[in-house]
Amino acid sequence: MSDILHRIATETASPDGVYQALTTIDGLAGWWTTDTTGKADVGGVIDFQFVPGGFSMKVLELQPGELVRWEVVEGPEEWVGTKVNWTLKQSGDYTVVLFEHLGWKEPVEFMYHCSTKWASYLLSLKSLVETGAGFPSPKDVQISDWH
Amino acid sequence: MSDILHRIATETASPDGVYQALTTIDGLAGWWTTDTTGKADVGGVIDFQFVPGGFSMKVLELQPGELVRWEVVEGPEEWVGTKVNWTLKQSGDYTVVLFEHLGWKEPVEFMYHCSTKWASYLLSLKSLVETGAGFPSPKDVQISDWH
Repeated sequence: MSDILHRIATETASPDGVYQALTTIDGLAGWWTTDTTGKADVGGVIDFQFVPGGFSMKVLELQPGELVRWEVVEGPEEWVGTKVNWTLKQSGDYTVVLFEHLGWKEPVEFMYHCSTKWASYLLSLKSLVETGAGFPSPKDVQISDWH
Repeated sequence: MSDILHRIATETASPDGVYQALTTIDGLAGWWTTDTTGKADVGGVIDFQFVPGGFSMKVLELQPGELVRWEVVEGPEEWVGTKVNWTLKQSGDYTVVLFEHLGWKEPVEFMYHCSTKWASYLLSLKSLVETGAGFPSPKDVQISDWH
């Protein structure tokens, strides 16, 4: 098993802004993809569509201001069954976000791509929370020939 | 052991530009840190200084246009002994860069940070090769309270 791990922090006085951006359809559409639909409650499924394809995430757990856990229920075969964890903590003037995309069966080249692409979306999340404007798909940063 | 993996691609007709950016002091100073010194030949040690500290990399292997391998010989204790591999390949109009920072003893929070920070530096490398201007330290993107 291989994992993608990232850490960013937003300059914010509480985790509320990040938590909203991770747990509401409008919030998610503001940094990941504008084409976000579905139900964001626990047990709900959120559908994210991008230019090359899409993913559906089942919301496994929500702890306000602290934790968001998803399971990938539809998407590229390498993604299905993997889990995404968002752990939030306040550290002085910053909200720290620990991101984990866990349980890749093999470290295939597509995983290398997704690792870098996740980082660019995390910077979009940071921008959304700090400035009110992210850069979600289809206005996302193109990192390679794989978009 | 845990690994950081990334993939970017530059819109370039051959790997020459990326290879130069990875194997010359001037090239490295153009995307990673302006404070880059040392010897970039095989067996040489390159010193990279940043605002929070620095790293020294021993150049283990150079295959022109294809592969660059480093070993971390000085720096934060979590980095010493880890290895960094750069694998290049041409795919149509793009030079694909597979990046690996291998052999972290534990997936500590600092590794999460370095994973995201590497991604931001890879985008700086892409910018340097495609446009002639990167954004190396101290003009790098600040991703968090950890710089």
